[in-house]
Amino acid sequence: MQTRTIEWRDGTVLTIDQSKLPWETVTLEMKSCGDVAEAIKTMKIRGAPLLGAAAAFALALTASHSKRKSKEELIYELEKAAEILKSTRPTGVNLFWAADRILAKARNFSGSAEDLAAFVVEEAKKIADEDVAANRMIGKFGAELIIDGDVVLTHCNAGALATVEYGTALGVIRAAWEQGKKISVIATETRPKLQGARLTTYELKRDGIPVTLITDNMVGYVMYKRMASKVIVGADRIVQDAVINKIGTFTIAVLAKEHDIPFYVAAPKSTFDLAHKSSDVIIEERKPEEVTHIGSLRIAAEGVNALNPAFDITPLDYVTAIICESGILYKKDFDKFK
Amino acid sequence: MQTRTIEWRDGTVLTIDQSKLPWETVTLEMKSCGDVAEAIKTMKIRGAPLLGAAAAFALALTASHSKRKSKEELIYELEKAAEILKSTRPTGVNLFWAADRILAKARNFSGSAEDLAAFVVEEAKKIADEDVAANRMIGKFGAELIIDGDVVLTHCNAGALATVEYGTALGVIRAAWEQGKKISVIATETRPKLQGARLTTYELKRDGIPVTLITDNMVGYVMYKRMASKVIVGADRIVQDAVINKIGTFTIAVLAKEHDIPFYVAAPKSTFDLAHKSSDVIIEERKPEEVTHIGSLRIAAEGVNALNPAFDITPLDYVTAIICESGILYKKDFDKFK
Repeated sequence: MQTRTIEWRDGTVLTIDQSKLPWETVTLEMKSCGDVAEAIKTMKIRGAPLLGAAAAFALALTASHSKRKSKEELIYELEKAAEILKSTRPTGVNLFWAADRILAKARNFSGSAEDLAAFVVEEAKKIADEDVAANRMIGKFGAELIIDGDVVLTHCNAGALATVEYGTALGVIRAAWEQGKKISVIATETRPKLQGARLTTYELKRDGIPVTLITDNMVGYVMYKRMASKVIVGADRIVQDAVINKIGTFTIAVLAKEHDIPFYVAAPKSTFDLAHKSSDVIIEERKPEEVTHIGSLRIAAEGVNALNPAFDITPLDYVTAIICESGILYKKDFDKFK
Repeated sequence: MQTRTIEWRDGTVLTIDQSKLPWETVTLEMKSCGDVAEAIKTMKIRGAPLLGAAAAFALALTASHSKRKSKEELIYELEKAAEILKSTRPTGVNLFWAADRILAKARNFSGSAEDLAAFVVEEAKKIADEDVAANRMIGKFGAELIIDGDVVLTHCNAGALATVEYGTALGVIRAAWEQGKKISVIATETRPKLQGARLTTYELKRDGIPVTLITDNMVGYVMYKRMASKVIVGADRIVQDAVINKIGTFTIAVLAKEHDIPFYVAAPKSTFDLAHKSSDVIIEERKPEEVTHIGSLRIAAEGVNALNPAFDITPLDYVTAIICESGILYKKDFDKFK
């Protein structure tokens, strides 16, 4: 198994099929942009920073396997590939950011088609490396906020599996743990796709960090009983006025505010989209069967309607601080977003 | 199938096995207090008002099948049976209330052992009938709070299946619907046991009342988007300072307060336990496997810890009004609880 969640190897992209965790660790080998797009749609690959790296590597696959005759043809192919990638999931911004970064650099590239293909591969690797470096810095800054005895509640999976390596919210927890701080974690299961139950408990157990699983509706009780001292979550997009993250994040933020518990968001700057407001963001609505069924088991009356927004909107008023690779942004810094 | 959720028939007690819904409608035939206690522990029977009636009928089974020689022997048998029933689930109060009511009346009974046995059966039937009548009155009073266009969010199942007939929270919704009010319902799935998904959508669909299922962590989003106009839930116990109800209720109450959405509790007076405070109540902690597994499917890393409080505590500050068979109690009335 590769040590990173996603890797470029000899013209293919390797990743872990996250839909199979925690039951099986299956390496997914992707040979085309279409393979990557399909893996994103079916959430075999998920997590905003990882989606950025995946999009970059998908373009690297396109460039690498292209039968282009000219640089212009290759750029056209990359543009088409980027369109496919951008149609997979509308809410998280890292995917758009990575695709646009590569497209912009490709358009400005001077050199042969072959050189451009090699450049795109290198740029994709660079995006992945930068994500690792950003996560380490997020961990370093964020760990300063964590003290001995903290019980950190986290939602969904903002861990190594959501990034190229290390993680954002779990990166902070990991860094604090590596510093020898005595902490433990409460992980919400995160219905409907159960990323907290399936992925976060798996990652933390692997690293020996104490973790307790709860259902999403236990957060209020846990805070009422003062069993959680801090909340740290990741983000899929940070806009001028809000953090967009996995469905359930806003519910936790409201509860944290009501109980005076700090609510931190850990995310690399590739997640920032400060040209937009929350009202500009499309919240992805996934198929109702993810709610009415768990795996192949129907859990509701037959034919019942269900909502399935994949993300929600947490106004910045509810956020104590945002931890990014440049440091910790507090409420006073949020004003600069506008 | 019987029309009531629980019925006495020829010395047996019939009920619907709620653990098999919505997949199968299986009638459970119980012949002894032990049968009833086992069905309660395994949540084949659940819902506070229904547990009251079930405990009453369990004592009726004991009385009816007893080989007692004297009234004193029968009372002793009833006391032992009541102990078994009271050891099943500690949080909801209706079960305790019903058992104690029958025991008190049995101790004061003058007549033969045989007459007492018949009296206990009649008293159990009376408790069931009173629950039906209480639910109808709750529906009548509660429906006054509901207007055309309301979207009522409810949690868990406080319906016909949680009572002898009609329901408390769903009784209010039913009554409003029967009056021709144009309303719809949002049902939270209610992890870990999924009573909202399995039972509430089943009941409402059967009655033709429009219902949309959401996961528990979508409540914040739904309120943020102003998609719910009112909340109505049931209760397992109402004490001087709080409502104790299914885990997740408090989370919804905090969100409702934050969004200025009325939060109503519908419950018969058999749920009131005004001699106690919330700090006196034992919150039942069920086995972690209900959280780490869904059915037989493990959804978390192997061996992970989980919390599983079955109920939570909603301080009365968060409650707009309590709807009982005597009318609607508002905040000013809560002071009288102390």
